[in-house]
Amino acid sequence: MKLTDLQALLIHELKDLLWAEKHLTKALPKMARAATTPELEEAFLSHLEETKTHVERVESMLETLGVAVKGQKCKGMEGIVAEGEELIEEKKTADPSVLDAGLITAAQRVEHYEIAGYGSARNYAELLGHAKIAELIQQTLDEEGAADKKLTQIAKAVNKEAMKAGEPANV
Amino acid sequence: MKLTDLQALLIHELKDLLWAEKHLTKALPKMARAATTPELEEAFLSHLEETKTHVERVESMLETLGVAVKGQKCKGMEGIVAEGEELIEEKKTADPSVLDAGLITAAQRVEHYEIAGYGSARNYAELLGHAKIAELIQQTLDEEGAADKKLTQIAKAVNKEAMKAGEPANV
Repeated sequence: MKLTDLQALLIHELKDLLWAEKHLTKALPKMARAATTPELEEAFLSHLEETKTHVERVESMLETLGVAVKGQKCKGMEGIVAEGEELIEEKKTADPSVLDAGLITAAQRVEHYEIAGYGSARNYAELLGHAKIAELIQQTLDEEGAADKKLTQIAKAVNKEAMKAGEPANV
Repeated sequence: MKLTDLQALLIHELKDLLWAEKHLTKALPKMARAATTPELEEAFLSHLEETKTHVERVESMLETLGVAVKGQKCKGMEGIVAEGEELIEEKKTADPSVLDAGLITAAQRVEHYEIAGYGSARNYAELLGHAKIAELIQQTLDEEGAADKKLTQIAKAVNKEAMKAGEPANV
């Protein structure tokens, strides 16, 4: 990666996002299996389908730019997903609703992180005159934003349910 | 970490955020040194001061909750910061404005990630009746949001400058 111009930075961001989205396609099924609230499980599975489309979109952008359609390891996403997996490992001892609340937070960290990356990439694409790429990124951004809102909605019920769990430990 | 109730999840999130903020206090000076746009350098240094306050706030929250004031490794933040450091290593071969644009993206990924974490923690604190903690988290959220907007503002000039760098590599 030599960041000699803005196009190089755009390509860098897209390769990073490609790796991130592919990594997410492996994590979402595990999160869906760990979830106990049916709406949450559904939300993870439906976002898995969207994520597969996001992978295809980024691949098509890299093709348009004439570079290798290959991701590059995104340490940020790797770390965020690893945190989600640590949470899943707590399943045996966790209250199901509290675990669901934690899974929602983990997923929203993913969404916010992706939104920041795509937001910058869209700005670079626009400046560089890659209108079609900017448009595709905007579609993904809209879907990531909607997924985040849906999780906020589900969290309202899940958090209330989680409130009923156990006795508050430190009040 | 046993997620037996919502308070346990709140404590988990706060310890994670404490580690993340502390880690960020080490990364921001490096990002400031790597930046060439004076406004960006200033923004990183002023956010460093805010971040130190965020550390103190989370510490006071953990004290209020009567638990050990100790962070726990946040792999998400570790990964995001590692990505920023990889970018800084490109400084020798990068165009200064393009590198600045990349640093802004890296910083915005951090901000968005933190906003997601704090947003959930605030909701848990509210539900648990920890009004003072929820209020402190909201103050931090407002500052993170303002830092993110400031970066978007700086990016407008930086990205335009970055457009002038080199010849587009793949058009």
